[in-house]
Amino acid sequence: MRIGIDLGGTNLAYGLVDDVGQIVKRGSTRLGDYEPSVIADNMLKIYREYAAEYEITTLGIGVPGIVSQEDGVVITCVNLNWKMVPLATYLRSRIKCDIVIGNDANAACVGETLFGGMKGYQNAILLTLGTGVGGGVIAGGKLLTGYQGAGAELGHMIIDGQGQRCNCGNIGCLETFISATALIKDYNRRMLTDHVDNAKAVFDRYVMGQVEAQQTVDEFVDRFATGIINLYNIFAPEIIAIGGGVSLAFDLFKDQLESQIDARLFSKDIVYGKIVRANLHNDAGIIGAAYLDQF
Amino acid sequence: MRIGIDLGGTNLAYGLVDDVGQIVKRGSTRLGDYEPSVIADNMLKIYREYAAEYEITTLGIGVPGIVSQEDGVVITCVNLNWKMVPLATYLRSRIKCDIVIGNDANAACVGETLFGGMKGYQNAILLTLGTGVGGGVIAGGKLLTGYQGAGAELGHMIIDGQGQRCNCGNIGCLETFISATALIKDYNRRMLTDHVDNAKAVFDRYVMGQVEAQQTVDEFVDRFATGIINLYNIFAPEIIAIGGGVSLAFDLFKDQLESQIDARLFSKDIVYGKIVRANLHNDAGIIGAAYLDQF
Repeated sequence: MRIGIDLGGTNLAYGLVDDVGQIVKRGSTRLGDYEPSVIADNMLKIYREYAAEYEITTLGIGVPGIVSQEDGVVITCVNLNWKMVPLATYLRSRIKCDIVIGNDANAACVGETLFGGMKGYQNAILLTLGTGVGGGVIAGGKLLTGYQGAGAELGHMIIDGQGQRCNCGNIGCLETFISATALIKDYNRRMLTDHVDNAKAVFDRYVMGQVEAQQTVDEFVDRFATGIINLYNIFAPEIIAIGGGVSLAFDLFKDQLESQIDARLFSKDIVYGKIVRANLHNDAGIIGAAYLDQF
Repeated sequence: MRIGIDLGGTNLAYGLVDDVGQIVKRGSTRLGDYEPSVIADNMLKIYREYAAEYEITTLGIGVPGIVSQEDGVVITCVNLNWKMVPLATYLRSRIKCDIVIGNDANAACVGETLFGGMKGYQNAILLTLGTGVGGGVIAGGKLLTGYQGAGAELGHMIIDGQGQRCNCGNIGCLETFISATALIKDYNRRMLTDHVDNAKAVFDRYVMGQVEAQQTVDEFVDRFATGIINLYNIFAPEIIAIGGGVSLAFDLFKDQLESQIDARLFSKDIVYGKIVRANLHNDAGIIGAAYLDQF
């Protein structure tokens, strides 16, 4: 059995994951203290509880930041205010099992590629559209981490010099156009009243044919297609899965997105990757963390 | 010994490459006929000439198009009007040595990584700035080809929705901002007379302090920095080498480029890749083609 831990900004979600990628037991604890040793001790406690009952081969952890997966160091995690935390070393000195630590979006990508919507593909990309836009890339059967784990930050690919300023400081990152946050902001910008606070509300109005919601979704799809075209030209994946909250509306915008993409392909002679919805949802992070050592 | 062939749009350059990446003999023939079998027979002739004198282990060919390196099929090569040409199969049935066929920019990247400006790096990117912008990526020690070889088309990463239309049909590809062609076009657009036909002329005027040339180079550097930031966030390379004709002016714009990049880094806690000039110049394609099987 493996343990997967999905470390978020406010919660620590975890699960006991079997050899076919099923979560057989699970739990979640609220983070009170962001001190690395407190959170790490919390992880040890989870391990010991499961290890008392099951043989645990691997403990995998997904962290929402830049992680050097090779040596298990969290280089930086803005949400937790962590810098250069040697998480793997800390844990290894206290428990006896394989420990692997990676980026949370990479973990989700691994989960979807092993057991979810991209099962079996060697060239696969996960894009998660939530508060921000996260990414994970399997290229040639290998997880793309880049030097010190700073790669696959697909949400921070600049696609328009005239766009909005991103949290990262740059202008026009993909995240500023296609995250749930961006959708909400763009819709509200078009409205004097009836402001919304979630992406579902925008899609609900879109389905009802409301003009401003349609304009918002049109703009979203246009930018999304640009992002996908860039990923096609950079990685030539066989498949791209869309995850995160916005993906719940995938069926609503799929046809429009595909037709925009078709119009912008680099070559008509190439079979480009299909676009699907990720299907492990929030579990992808736990399942994928448990299997981060597999790529 | 190995043979490397760099197939261009008008010439076929080739060389006998030794085990330390030196071209010990070389030649070039003008392409008269683009018929695949004619060009392939030309390659066979080159092989036989060298094979009469040396033991040839590998014949490698870089093609300016999308090449499925796994099976040695040129999926599409616009310049030669080739589609689905099974070049490797054709050659293998006629000569006895290892044959490997890949994209020309990928070949140049392999050359620079094995023997040139990026020697020894596991996460390395080559950007060639010439008529267009080509790219090659080594990620985690492996050449990124993508499905059917259509990956690493870095010049066709869209960085601005408001830009110029690219030959590929899209608007705002990196190539439309930082290729030699783009530099020349941008400079001429600013001038009523004194139009130029090469990038060197723009940089010569830049060095002399001419206002329009400075504006052109400023704009070029600004867009170049955006492209590099995207490559940092997507791949986290240890090194990026700049090749192609424009790279001859590298020392003129290096400082300005680096300061623009520094201002836009995703995280100050990360060591991002250094930017260097490629140093095998036109030989990278021949040398890298000969060693395409090494990644």
